[in-house]
Amino acid sequence: MGKVALGPQTLVYPMPAMLVGADVDAKPNFMTVAWGGIACGDPPMISVAIRHVRHTLKGIRQNQTFSVNMPSVEQVKETDYCGIVSGSKADKVRACLFEVFYGKLGNAPLIEQCPANLECRVVQILDLGSHSLVIGQIEETYVSEDCLTEGKPDVDKIRPLTYVTSPAARYQGLGEVAGKAWSVGKRLA
Amino acid sequence: MGKVALGPQTLVYPMPAMLVGADVDAKPNFMTVAWGGIACGDPPMISVAIRHVRHTLKGIRQNQTFSVNMPSVEQVKETDYCGIVSGSKADKVRACLFEVFYGKLGNAPLIEQCPANLECRVVQILDLGSHSLVIGQIEETYVSEDCLTEGKPDVDKIRPLTYVTSPAARYQGLGEVAGKAWSVGKRLA
Repeated sequence: MGKVALGPQTLVYPMPAMLVGADVDAKPNFMTVAWGGIACGDPPMISVAIRHVRHTLKGIRQNQTFSVNMPSVEQVKETDYCGIVSGSKADKVRACLFEVFYGKLGNAPLIEQCPANLECRVVQILDLGSHSLVIGQIEETYVSEDCLTEGKPDVDKIRPLTYVTSPAARYQGLGEVAGKAWSVGKRLA
Repeated sequence: MGKVALGPQTLVYPMPAMLVGADVDAKPNFMTVAWGGIACGDPPMISVAIRHVRHTLKGIRQNQTFSVNMPSVEQVKETDYCGIVSGSKADKVRACLFEVFYGKLGNAPLIEQCPANLECRVVQILDLGSHSLVIGQIEETYVSEDCLTEGKPDVDKIRPLTYVTSPAARYQGLGEVAGKAWSVGKRLA
């Protein structure tokens, strides 16, 4: 087996398919973001990379708040749509029939149909080049009641959506369990 | 359906199971990182969140370079092991039988057995609380020859590993295709 150098590429597997929300000019809008992840544990923070011109980023700058909504495999059409169309040209909430709710921050719109939601306050926005990296502190987490088991988030009920980057350029669910964390590796210790 | 507020949590689905590598005191070391993602498109950048005390972070600070290695489902034991054990106490390369190679940066160790590898130069390290957020520019991308189709990375050959956060705390492969990106959402437009 050998290695082939392909030049610098944004090649991470897997990526989440997140719907990032903000009120833009007091109207809720959502965009699809696959570039981001948890940035800190205590306090809990998340980062999302967004192109400077995006409509949602305007709202994040206005309010210094945003949401991260995690769709299930059932919301694949809505997730893809929110990545194709700009909120400056369409009412995505209406097109997707999203039921929007607000939490403790008051102006970060959340999607009822998405099984897991994070409500975030902006900590820092870094200009890294083509993208702004928005780092937010997670102020509250919401999970749909029917996706809990004994009061805890149950990934088998959440059925999260992953984005597989180009050239595949497709969404997939999670597959077979490969092993238990903090456990399967002990055999090598 | 209702929502339950669970307090601030680092709840993102899915997370990648990445092996972050650095030479620490001139010796290659790798740690498992699920917290991170792409941070910018042009230039291509990635962020990884690492606890301040971690051995690998010491090496990243020493050299201002690091690697991100994406394991396949076949490397689940090695991936979990590198998250359990500290490089200050064990030779993880030997325990995992990793074949290490170096690329254009010269001091960012890469794992031959992982199907996809990123070679990164540090752009910025942010102290966000419990974790340092290391932002690196992706200088080169390597993919195993047998994971390419017509010269491009083939996710069905790469078979990437995802980390599903607690309480599931397990690794899973990718599952069923839910839809084609930039396509399945057009029906709503």
